[in-house]
Order: sequence, then C-alpha cells, then structure tokens
Amino acid sequence: MITEEQVKEALRNLLVPGVGRSLIDMNLLRKIELNDSNVKITVASAALGSGTQEWVKTKVIGSVEKIAGIGEIAVEFLEAKPSEINQIAQVVCVMSGKGGVGKSLVTGLSAVALARQGKRVGILDADITGPSIPKMFGIKARPTGSETGILPIISRMGIEIMSINLLLENEDDAVIWRGPLIGNSIKQFWEETLWGQLDYLLVDLPPGTADAALTVMQTLPVSGVIIVSTPQDLANMIVRKAVNMAQKMNISILGVVENMSYFLVPDTGKKIELFGKSKAEEMAKTANAPLLGLLPIDPELARLCDEGNVEKYTSDEFTSFTDSLIKALP
Amino acid sequence: MITEEQVKEALRNLLVPGVGRSLIDMNLLRKIELNDSNVKITVASAALGSGTQEWVKTKVIGSVEKIAGIGEIAVEFLEAKPSEINQIAQVVCVMSGKGGVGKSLVTGLSAVALARQGKRVGILDADITGPSIPKMFGIKARPTGSETGILPIISRMGIEIMSINLLLENEDDAVIWRGPLIGNSIKQFWEETLWGQLDYLLVDLPPGTADAALTVMQTLPVSGVIIVSTPQDLANMIVRKAVNMAQKMNISILGVVENMSYFLVPDTGKKIELFGKSKAEEMAKTANAPLLGLLPIDPELARLCDEGNVEKYTSDEFTSFTDSLIKALP
Repeated sequence: MITEEQVKEALRNLLVPGVGRSLIDMNLLRKIELNDSNVKITVASAALGSGTQEWVKTKVIGSVEKIAGIGEIAVEFLEAKPSEINQIAQVVCVMSGKGGVGKSLVTGLSAVALARQGKRVGILDADITGPSIPKMFGIKARPTGSETGILPIISRMGIEIMSINLLLENEDDAVIWRGPLIGNSIKQFWEETLWGQLDYLLVDLPPGTADAALTVMQTLPVSGVIIVSTPQDLANMIVRKAVNMAQKMNISILGVVENMSYFLVPDTGKKIELFGKSKAEEMAKTANAPLLGLLPIDPELARLCDEGNVEKYTSDEFTSFTDSLIKALP
Repeated sequence: MITEEQVKEALRNLLVPGVGRSLIDMNLLRKIELNDSNVKITVASAALGSGTQEWVKTKVIGSVEKIAGIGEIAVEFLEAKPSEINQIAQVVCVMSGKGGVGKSLVTGLSAVALARQGKRVGILDADITGPSIPKMFGIKARPTGSETGILPIISRMGIEIMSINLLLENEDDAVIWRGPLIGNSIKQFWEETLWGQLDYLLVDLPPGTADAALTVMQTLPVSGVIIVSTPQDLANMIVRKAVNMAQKMNISILGVVENMSYFLVPDTGKKIELFGKSKAEEMAKTANAPLLGLLPIDPELARLCDEGNVEKYTSDEFTSFTDSLIKALP
C-alpha cells in the first residue's frame, strides 16, 4: 500500500527552478490523492511560467515513479495566487525613519542570524533609495515569474530575497511587474511574491514615516518592528518619529539596535565614539523595548557587504546581537 | 534735491520681520518715485501678512522721514508672487542617490563656505526623510507668511533656509502651506518661498533618482549638481545612478565630494579607511567632474551638527573643500 507520506518524501528534494527551494518549502504541493497504486498530485501554478510547469511536472513524475509498486501518476496544476499559497509565521519590519543609518545592514544581519539558527527567512527589501540588500548578499539574478506572481531570489544560505532593485534594472522587463512600481510596490511584493513557507519575513522599510511605512503597517500582518538608530542626535530625532509612529499604530517594538555605535582602533583597542556618545539606552527607554545590540563601525563588515558576503560575517558583537534578537522575536 | 539713492540708503538696513534680512536684499523694494521733495515708495507684499505690511510701512516712513528736506512720504504695496520677486543667480543641487551619505552635511558646509566668502546663500531642504538642515543650523522657528508666499528662516550667519520639516511639525498650521505637501512640495518651495536676491540657492535633494530629483531638474533652472558619495561600494553603485541621471538630463556635474572618507585616530594620527579604500578619484572620473574634497569622519563635526553649530566648523579639510568649491561653482 502506497502512502501519502511516501509520495511527499519522494518529492521532498524537488527544487523549484528559478528559486532553488523545494516544492514543499514553497508550499506549492497542494494535494496528494491515492487510489490503490495510482496517484494524483496537485501543484499550485502560482508564479510558475508554462515552461517551468512542464519542467516541474516531468520532475514530479520522475521522482514519484521511483516508488516501488506505483501505478499511474497524474500531475495537475491548480491556479492560485501567491497570497493564497504563502504561509508566513512572522512579519518583522526594520525601520529607522532616517536613511543611511544601517537599516539594510541590520535587516541583512538579522536574516543571517535567523538562518544560522535554522529558521526559514525571507527579506522584502522595500527601500527604493538603494539596492543594498541584493548587493550585500551578492545577488544579481533577475527574478522570474508568471502572470500570477513572481519568484524570490535565494541567497547562498537559503534566504529568500525580493527587492525593488532586482526588477528596476531593466525597465523593459515589464511582463513580470505590472502597475505603478513605486508606491503600491511594497503591497505588491507582499501579495505577488511566492514566499512559500517562512518562519520570518523581514521587511526593510524605506526611510521616512510617510506613505510607504504606513502602507506596510496597515496592509501587512506585522508582528513588530525593530528600530535602528545611530548615536547622532540628528538621526535620533528622526528615529523617534518612527518610534512614535509604531506606537500610534499599536505595533509593538521588538527591539532597538544602535549602529555605527563606536569604533575600536585596531592597534590600541581604544573605543572611539565617532558620532558622539551612545544614545542606545535612552532610545530603548523611549521605545520601551529591549536594546538588541550596539554594532560598531567595522571595516571588515563594510568589506564583506561590498563583496556580497554578508553571510560570512562573524564577530562577538554579532553573536551577542543574535542572542538578543532570538529572545526578542515572537 | 533728494535722490533715489538717498532714499535707498535710508532703507538699506530696514529688516523684514520674520526673516531678518533687509527689504532690499529680499528684493521687496520695487520702485522709488520722486516728485520734488515728495516720495512714493512701492513695496511688494509677497509673503507679507497684513500685520507685517503695516509694520514695514511704519518703518519705511520712519526711516525715510529722517532725510533732511523730505516732503510727503507715501508707501504703496504691490501684490506679487515670490516667483516674480526672487532673483537667484545660481541654483546648485546636492545629490547622492543614496540616503545617509552626508548630502545634508555637504549642503550645509557648502552654504557655510559660500557665506564666509560674503555670498548670499539659501538652502532649499528637499529631503523629506530627515530634518537635518534646520537641526544642523540650530533652527527651530516656524516660517511665517501670507496667502502669497512664505518667508524663509535665516540662520545666525545669514543663510536663508526653507525645509519641509519646519512646516511639518504642526500639521494644523495649514494656512501657510496649501495643497499636497509631499510630491509637489519642492516645486512649491521654489515658487512660493520669498528668497529675494541670492547668489546661490543650494537644493538638498531627497535620496533617490525618482520623482523628486526629476521634478527639481525639470522645474528649477539648475546650474549644476554636486555629487556626494562615500567609499562604500554599496553607496557608490547608487551614486552612479545619480551621475547617470544628471548626465542624461544634460545637467552639468560641478564636482564630487567623498564623505566619511577616512578617520584620523586622535592619538596616533593614523588614517583609517573605515568604509574601504577611497573611490573618490574613480567617482570623479565617472562623473567627469573635479573632486572637491575628501571629508573625514570628524567627531567634532558630528558634535557641532548635533548642537546646531555647523557654522562654527573649521578644519584643514574644510578649507581645502571651500577653495575647490569656489573654483568649481559658476
């Protein structure tokens, strides 16, 4: 007697082309129906072009026919939107109000920290002012998709990434992306990207507390936000606006990170506060949230980000940040 | 015989309340008509509320009646829009593509450099992601105005400043500012602010190469742009987009500034490139423009900016930047 579990097992390692995650992790395997030794497998076609569907069908049959005693194999595609397929446990926004304080860096490092803990992580890069996320992860590929949706790009560690910048490069590639890009784009990224099953989707919010941030907080089921700041008063003032905004919208602040907090002089080990005295404790108090860490200016980290190797970063500060993050996240 | 020059001289130091610059510098003195010893003075009422007009009238009469042998003094107001009054010699945009690279800092320092050379300078802060300019100059006052326009705030050194943030703080103050703020706001700042006579209006562009930057380049008579970058590849990539955009729109690039270029360790004097090797020369070549300077991370500068005292900053790098800037500007 053939079981559903056997069929599922046979399909476990079948990777969806274009994204490189398994059919099951992408939540595309919808139904397995057994009738004696015959099996009918229903796969959602969300974001899969017709060529990809053909490929998936062939691979599904190829995998399942290896099961001893299997009879007829039928593969059927079910039309579905990504929003019907996605199963995302927690949506966490990374926010700062001000640009250039290291919001993308904190998003990237948080994703790496969670992925190292075995979590399934995605990043929705909503920062239209800069393509920091793809660059940081060394991603240059263009997302593929179909009329129903778009497939994220997967990093070396397995982090799913979708960024406005991945789509903007060649504006003639309009088939994948309909409608006005900027403005409603974040909502579209949320609804039309096939994220599949994720433990955490991190949203790298654009700077500012205006439309984009509002759209996210009102449209996405946000579990909470991480606030990024720097020691500069200038930044702090603006970050406080972000804190106020989250509080007004009843979205819990999960933690506060101070970036560019200090610099350790390599030879002497002396700690220099380049942008003034740390205001992290004060900011955490304002936000009524735990302080997740003080990240120093680290030339090694800058180099890794420039090389697209953020996933290789290790440091004591990062380890301690990871520990606090895990504790703070829902 | 009373001359026009005498009347003008008598009015030279009459300051417009709410802005603190002279009636003549604001270009509000429109006409002086003499008839024997009688004089009729026409003043534009742009951006002056009725109370201010009364005050100006009293002061004009008070100043002119001191001229020996003067007869009757008539003061008339002429309705005019700021855009009909403003005489701005050069509009220079400061641009970077990316947020947080120090665009506002370069704008502020450029304004200070020019003001120290005796130039009349204004700053149009179009960066809605952060109120950096007012804070840097220690400005908290709210601009005043009338139905016809709005008056800039003047810094201690005499730099005229208009910032979205000065108006956003109390959103109920809608009398001053009509219509949708964000979006068309820069155009409105250009047209509805009474800048008066300026040698340079520096425009601190929002990050990005999208709508805001496009609006400015298409609407304002831009003489050229200054490009701000940092040594990070991440920033560089985005800054190159800004360069491309300026080139495509036939707007000349006046110069390139690299911010956060290095850090001099106080004790040892050792130069550390915190964000990687300088890419300034390369960027200047890409932009086909002179390199105006490499600005280090300077804790003293960060402190002055936080205190609202950017106008007090001096350093060798700043002096050398000033020299290059003066040479590069039209």
